[in-house]
Amino acid sequence: MSKLWGGRFAKETHALVDEYCSSLAIDTRLALQDIEGSLAHAEMLGKTGILPKTEVEQIITALGEISTQVRLGKINWDPSAEDVHSEIERLLREKCGPIAGKLHTARSRNDQVLTDTKLYLKQTGAELLAELKETKSSLVAIAEKNVNTILPGLTHTQHAQPVSLAHHFLAYFWMFDRDAGRLVDLLKRADECPLGAAALAGTSFPIDRHQTAAKLGFAKPTENSLDTVSDRDFLIEFLSFSSILMMHLSRIAEELVWWSTPEFNYVTLDDSVTTGSSIMPQKKNPDVAELIRGKVGRVYGALMGSLTMMKALPLSYNRDLQEDKQYLFEAMDLSLSSLKVMRLMLDTAVFNHARMESSLAGDFSNATDLADDLVKKGLPFRDAHEVSGKVVRYCLETGKYMENLTLDELKPFSPLFDQTSLTVLPHLAVMQARSSFGATGSKQVIQQIERAKKNI
Amino acid sequence: MSKLWGGRFAKETHALVDEYCSSLAIDTRLALQDIEGSLAHAEMLGKTGILPKTEVEQIITALGEISTQVRLGKINWDPSAEDVHSEIERLLREKCGPIAGKLHTARSRNDQVLTDTKLYLKQTGAELLAELKETKSSLVAIAEKNVNTILPGLTHTQHAQPVSLAHHFLAYFWMFDRDAGRLVDLLKRADECPLGAAALAGTSFPIDRHQTAAKLGFAKPTENSLDTVSDRDFLIEFLSFSSILMMHLSRIAEELVWWSTPEFNYVTLDDSVTTGSSIMPQKKNPDVAELIRGKVGRVYGALMGSLTMMKALPLSYNRDLQEDKQYLFEAMDLSLSSLKVMRLMLDTAVFNHARMESSLAGDFSNATDLADDLVKKGLPFRDAHEVSGKVVRYCLETGKYMENLTLDELKPFSPLFDQTSLTVLPHLAVMQARSSFGATGSKQVIQQIERAKKNI
Amino acid sequence: MSKLWGGRFAKETHALVDEYCSSLAIDTRLALQDIEGSLAHAEMLGKTGILPKTEVEQIITALGEISTQVRLGKINWDPSAEDVHSEIERLLREKCGPIAGKLHTARSRNDQVLTDTKLYLKQTGAELLAELKETKSSLVAIAEKNVNTILPGLTHTQHAQPVSLAHHFLAYFWMFDRDAGRLVDLLKRADECPLGAAALAGTSFPIDRHQTAAKLGFAKPTENSLDTVSDRDFLIEFLSFSSILMMHLSRIAEELVWWSTPEFNYVTLDDSVTTGSSIMPQKKNPDVAELIRGKVGRVYGALMGSLTMMKALPLSYNRDLQEDKQYLFEAMDLSLSSLKVMRLMLDTAVFNHARMESSLAGDFSNATDLADDLVKKGLPFRDAHEVSGKVVRYCLETGKYMENLTLDELKPFSPLFDQTSLTVLPHLAVMQARSSFGATGSKQVIQQIERAKKNI
Amino acid sequence: MSKLWGGRFAKETHALVDEYCSSLAIDTRLALQDIEGSLAHAEMLGKTGILPKTEVEQIITALGEISTQVRLGKINWDPSAEDVHSEIERLLREKCGPIAGKLHTARSRNDQVLTDTKLYLKQTGAELLAELKETKSSLVAIAEKNVNTILPGLTHTQHAQPVSLAHHFLAYFWMFDRDAGRLVDLLKRADECPLGAAALAGTSFPIDRHQTAAKLGFAKPTENSLDTVSDRDFLIEFLSFSSILMMHLSRIAEELVWWSTPEFNYVTLDDSVTTGSSIMPQKKNPDVAELIRGKVGRVYGALMGSLTMMKALPLSYNRDLQEDKQYLFEAMDLSLSSLKVMRLMLDTAVFNHARMESSLAGDFSNATDLADDLVKKGLPFRDAHEVSGKVVRYCLETGKYMENLTLDELKPFSPLFDQTSLTVLPHLAVMQARSSFGATGSKQVIQQIERAKKNI
Repeated sequence: MSKLWGGRFAKETHALVDEYCSSLAIDTRLALQDIEGSLAHAEMLGKTGILPKTEVEQIITALGEISTQVRLGKINWDPSAEDVHSEIERLLREKCGPIAGKLHTARSRNDQVLTDTKLYLKQTGAELLAELKETKSSLVAIAEKNVNTILPGLTHTQHAQPVSLAHHFLAYFWMFDRDAGRLVDLLKRADECPLGAAALAGTSFPIDRHQTAAKLGFAKPTENSLDTVSDRDFLIEFLSFSSILMMHLSRIAEELVWWSTPEFNYVTLDDSVTTGSSIMPQKKNPDVAELIRGKVGRVYGALMGSLTMMKALPLSYNRDLQEDKQYLFEAMDLSLSSLKVMRLMLDTAVFNHARMESSLAGDFSNATDLADDLVKKGLPFRDAHEVSGKVVRYCLETGKYMENLTLDELKPFSPLFDQTSLTVLPHLAVMQARSSFGATGSKQVIQQIERAKKNI
Repeated sequence: MSKLWGGRFAKETHALVDEYCSSLAIDTRLALQDIEGSLAHAEMLGKTGILPKTEVEQIITALGEISTQVRLGKINWDPSAEDVHSEIERLLREKCGPIAGKLHTARSRNDQVLTDTKLYLKQTGAELLAELKETKSSLVAIAEKNVNTILPGLTHTQHAQPVSLAHHFLAYFWMFDRDAGRLVDLLKRADECPLGAAALAGTSFPIDRHQTAAKLGFAKPTENSLDTVSDRDFLIEFLSFSSILMMHLSRIAEELVWWSTPEFNYVTLDDSVTTGSSIMPQKKNPDVAELIRGKVGRVYGALMGSLTMMKALPLSYNRDLQEDKQYLFEAMDLSLSSLKVMRLMLDTAVFNHARMESSLAGDFSNATDLADDLVKKGLPFRDAHEVSGKVVRYCLETGKYMENLTLDELKPFSPLFDQTSLTVLPHLAVMQARSSFGATGSKQVIQQIERAKKNI
Repeated sequence: MSKLWGGRFAKETHALVDEYCSSLAIDTRLALQDIEGSLAHAEMLGKTGILPKTEVEQIITALGEISTQVRLGKINWDPSAEDVHSEIERLLREKCGPIAGKLHTARSRNDQVLTDTKLYLKQTGAELLAELKETKSSLVAIAEKNVNTILPGLTHTQHAQPVSLAHHFLAYFWMFDRDAGRLVDLLKRADECPLGAAALAGTSFPIDRHQTAAKLGFAKPTENSLDTVSDRDFLIEFLSFSSILMMHLSRIAEELVWWSTPEFNYVTLDDSVTTGSSIMPQKKNPDVAELIRGKVGRVYGALMGSLTMMKALPLSYNRDLQEDKQYLFEAMDLSLSSLKVMRLMLDTAVFNHARMESSLAGDFSNATDLADDLVKKGLPFRDAHEVSGKVVRYCLETGKYMENLTLDELKPFSPLFDQTSLTVLPHLAVMQARSSFGATGSKQVIQQIERAKKNI
Repeated sequence: MSKLWGGRFAKETHALVDEYCSSLAIDTRLALQDIEGSLAHAEMLGKTGILPKTEVEQIITALGEISTQVRLGKINWDPSAEDVHSEIERLLREKCGPIAGKLHTARSRNDQVLTDTKLYLKQTGAELLAELKETKSSLVAIAEKNVNTILPGLTHTQHAQPVSLAHHFLAYFWMFDRDAGRLVDLLKRADECPLGAAALAGTSFPIDRHQTAAKLGFAKPTENSLDTVSDRDFLIEFLSFSSILMMHLSRIAEELVWWSTPEFNYVTLDDSVTTGSSIMPQKKNPDVAELIRGKVGRVYGALMGSLTMMKALPLSYNRDLQEDKQYLFEAMDLSLSSLKVMRLMLDTAVFNHARMESSLAGDFSNATDLADDLVKKGLPFRDAHEVSGKVVRYCLETGKYMENLTLDELKPFSPLFDQTSLTVLPHLAVMQARSSFGATGSKQVIQQIERAKKNI
């Protein structure tokens, strides 16, 4: 292979070293962004008079042709090449000869690769943002259909208080809403163009960094050339965002897995999103949910890996940084695909309302309301809590459901109990009673849906 | 110990379990925030008529007294207690009897502890933001004194091109600037008050969540009660911010360590920030820099720990979440103290200008400019690169410094070399030639300092 | 505070630096090991004639007194001190004057602290090994009581094939068996005494490292002084062991959490290992299981932290390494306490056999055996799988249980079905049929219990 | 695509789901191991009479042909397939029709895939062990050539005491020696054959697990079927080993990077293992060392990812586990290739002895010996340390080298100084004086080399 350097070297690099150092298998994915960056750079070199217009035109025409070939999948990358940048320069040289060498004027691979990477992040980040919107829409749609669907709300995975299924899925809505906020913030912070930082110190050519930045759609050029070529904050911030996103997805996935068991039977996943077993004919497995849950580890790992890579790295560019793209691509791919298959699962899931409701019978998730009833009649909460706890124990020992108790049964526990005490006990009453801002009562949930819609 | 529950239990918890579950050793640190949250809650209970004014007054007075005792360090926490919340309720009960039990009306520990934690994050986060400002000021001060201090700029830890020491430290300025941006963003996103989400589903009492949120200085109440009690995004986002911050600090630390070696001798750290050896009398060790670099692992670990904690956790509150505070306190403490000792090191460091400059002699960090000289005379960059590389090899073989070459020596490599070729070679000229936006030439660096000042 | 160095320094260290660098809050825990190491060192200095016998006797007597004071908790550590080593030297000096200074002959803190740490690991590691044995015994005890207890065996958290509860808990037995194996291996590998490596290069005093190693119970002295003072492999290996152990515990914990739900109701945890709610009187929460599951993150975090600490650290000792003890103590404490509370939970758990068995009815976990029946009659497995799958679908559509089907109902699916086909369908028959080595049939399980007992 | 299940399903899986769930892109790498496992299984099915001999022969012949095609790279894998196992069954069916379906008798993909993975680990692990041996040999070879090469030994990256270059590289020898020990231990622990555990519970066919285990070279079959199909301890243990190995490599890499700077200039890396710059003609970069250091993050990430994957996973097989192979392959590839390129670097490195030695001049790394001289004359070490520290300060203030001081200059600091005090000061004397076991004096180093050779 021909390298972009060599004058001072007396020996070829060892084949094992070429293989170990090559990033081509990873970075061909940036071919289009690389050409995009080169087009902006070439145009600027022409406008500032650094290169003659005619040469710039030749370069731009040739890059356009290469771009088309990339889109059509017609490039045969040389597997022994160092990276996609040297490959594209090789192709350019094939098309327009030594003039190709002029494109690298006032540019280094250090600023070039970073420009490519940030362009990729901006473009694919926008796609991801759109996918988050779709997921949020799906959750709102489920919520709208389930305002009055009641199910056990859990704390410590134990029945706590009955909640609305709409409320349950809206909880996830707000998680994804925060995810979208984080993505917007990081994309804004990353919106500075590295091009022109050159190797590390800027350049002596009269380049116009504001022009290339604007052309490529960046808000502005980066502020400091040394920082520019060694900064991977945007990568780590993206991986952190992606880790939190995948964590959120793993939580829904976990619920769908357990809700799909015969014991819970809260949900029936569609055949199209489940798989069977090579040995057990009856199996219908929530594989997609399991895989989402399993793949969260890959993104956590990428985050840990990139933090490790950056630890104690002196200024400015160091080759360690080459590993950045693999982390970015992996997290981006997993974020996008996991959101998509999760949406598929949610959109086709059938929630078993009757089973959810029947699961509430005799579960004591109305015990807080029995205590609150006493509080409203003047008993301090701590004492009311004690009384209700004793009623629970009585029911456990006698096998009775709290919602079926009579006033005669309640009276011995507190003289404050009266007829109204009985009205607070049905589970639907318990759910509806929760009327504070952001609570699970249907009036509140309907308002919450309105606020959610404004935030999609 | 007396617990906040028990009515339904027939047995005491095992001593080992009490010990395993207790968070008191960690969360007494939230005592003041806990009281602050209780004061706002009590006041609201009074204003909404949920509790009689007189009782509220008693509670508020007693809480005020406890708060003073906490500030004076006069509380004897019961080491067998479950957590700080039950301890403060115990103290309250000692002061105002059973009325103390009414404070927990319409509130659960689930929303209470989260309110405390977020109050802590807001308050200490503001302190951290101030500390970041100080660090940025220190860096600008160093930059202002060193615009014309020249040193080898490195890529791959090899001499690349000469840069200004001001430019070098401004690179760190922009890192901390991004850190501050991330901190502001996350504090804004976390600025929603959990109080009133109750256990998981909201409450049937007519509470006013907007009032308590405003009283406690939050922008608004949280949107969804289930999400509220199980959300730890703000923690992970803070740990991610803190990991990146510590990573930045580890990079300066690494440089200070190596710059302090006799081989580099670029910097002399002050005696006040270095330590000696118990065995080797000559030692003056950059321990502070080493410890900063070592402690980055603790914050990375906290980030990984908290992500692990959240993986696949179903809604809503689960006891796993109790671990959150330890991660938060550790990262906050390390962020604050590491910034402080780093500033101390930087403020007192003596940079050895002469050594930095002498290190440039014959280092070929002017080779790019020799190539650029040919490019400006029409040679494609790739060919110019090759020529300059051969000149480097010539110098290496003859033991000559590139900056001392004569025109006669250069001519054989390219007929394009002329008298002006010699003027680009001195290292100061090389540095000053870099005049693109964000480059290391002094004109650019002075402008960069101005922009930095506006961003402190 | 008085430091163990200072001759060459013109200035005191800054108070913030002292605080940042001090490890006293962490390492007082090593006081007894430090004295143990010093006793061995002093005795050797005497035997080799490096110090006079009388001085050695004074030192040994004084150290003995300090040791007693430490055991009685009677030491007032100076909070401003650098570490436990300088504190013990201070105490020694108080007791025997300047002779105290001779103890540090031919020793550095670098080898001293490592000796302390490895002594701690050996001693506490043995305790942990004993605790693992106890856990394994508890699991075998549960297994012995439940050879014929049948429950749904899950893959993908879906009913797969019925298994014995004994078999289920024996699965965990073998996990802890591997854990014990890992612990034994790492303790063996760590069993080399660092004492005498001195600061980094060994010493010019005629010390006898084999003697101190033997005295302290190590297999031998370490091989290379540079490696010795910078090696923390044993820490990472322990943290890796501990991470896997905690992961195993998190898996049982997860199962106990879900098995405790009313939907599963497979297990009733004892009141003594569960806790209640401050707001919901009915709650009985599996907090211990949740906390074990949550705390796994702390150990994973410690592992990641220590790996980060070691990344790219040049030889030999660097102050970064000071962080090692916090990771070690944390993982050791969590491993020990988590094993203990898990055992408490398991020993007192009541398994609801009837519910486990009833959960099998109509769950198709006998479908593999219907297929196997056809295979035994000559049908290729893939085809038999297809037939059984269709029978499952027929049952799902008609609401029938597979175990209740008649031969008339089966025949249309395959002419190979006959009377014996019906005998394979009852769940107990399915379980018992599994007779291969390591399978769930009771004959195999009883043999497995025997093998387990030999491995406790 | 045709799946290995389907009878009970009414709908096809969604294309996105097929793509998300497919592991084919990863697991074709296990094709040969899969066939190897199938051959052993088929043979056993024949010997036990479960399948007729003739059918077994057909299967074995066909598998042999497929194996050859795999080796020749002649298989066109169907990109839409689920995994390599279904692909090989498809190929088998093409060759011998429905009999192919009989191979899956008494086997599930759950035990099959694990058998493949463990076979891969055993085989590639042996290769890695051989590579570790080679690396250890290279280090011993360097040591043998450099017993008397002196260089500054560092603590805190400051000159501490002079050491032998042999001793320095032997430090790494013992690290790799421990790595090899860990690898041997984990391979031994993983040496149990999963085949026959079937889906989760064993099988009702009269299989012989000891026979297949022996045939495939395993020490024995696994003990418990539920544990078998859900165990990934061996993966995590390998990733932990690999993380420590890569950490060791990152430490050498870090040193080679800094030693290659003009400031240190301790080593000249060969042209064949360094690379240049696309912009700076003079650059000769230690890219390989940087990449090794950077890639350590990928293995740390894989470890974190796999621990995350396993956290809180209930028994038995869950689809999350599919992610295991990617982690394993990545860590294995990086371990092997990083060891190889590191060896290449070390074998071709030229160590600049003169520069190392000159770096010692006036560096005070003889100060400990000046103190020890006083100790040997009766002064307590602490006081001697103080005296030597003051001599250091005197030299610093007067610009003198300690090794050049006269007795007249020393006397004022202590009356104990005499003519012999001067003889301990030359750096070579300092190094040679270190004669304790494992120290850097050449007599000790030569013995250490002998011990190392026995451990290669």
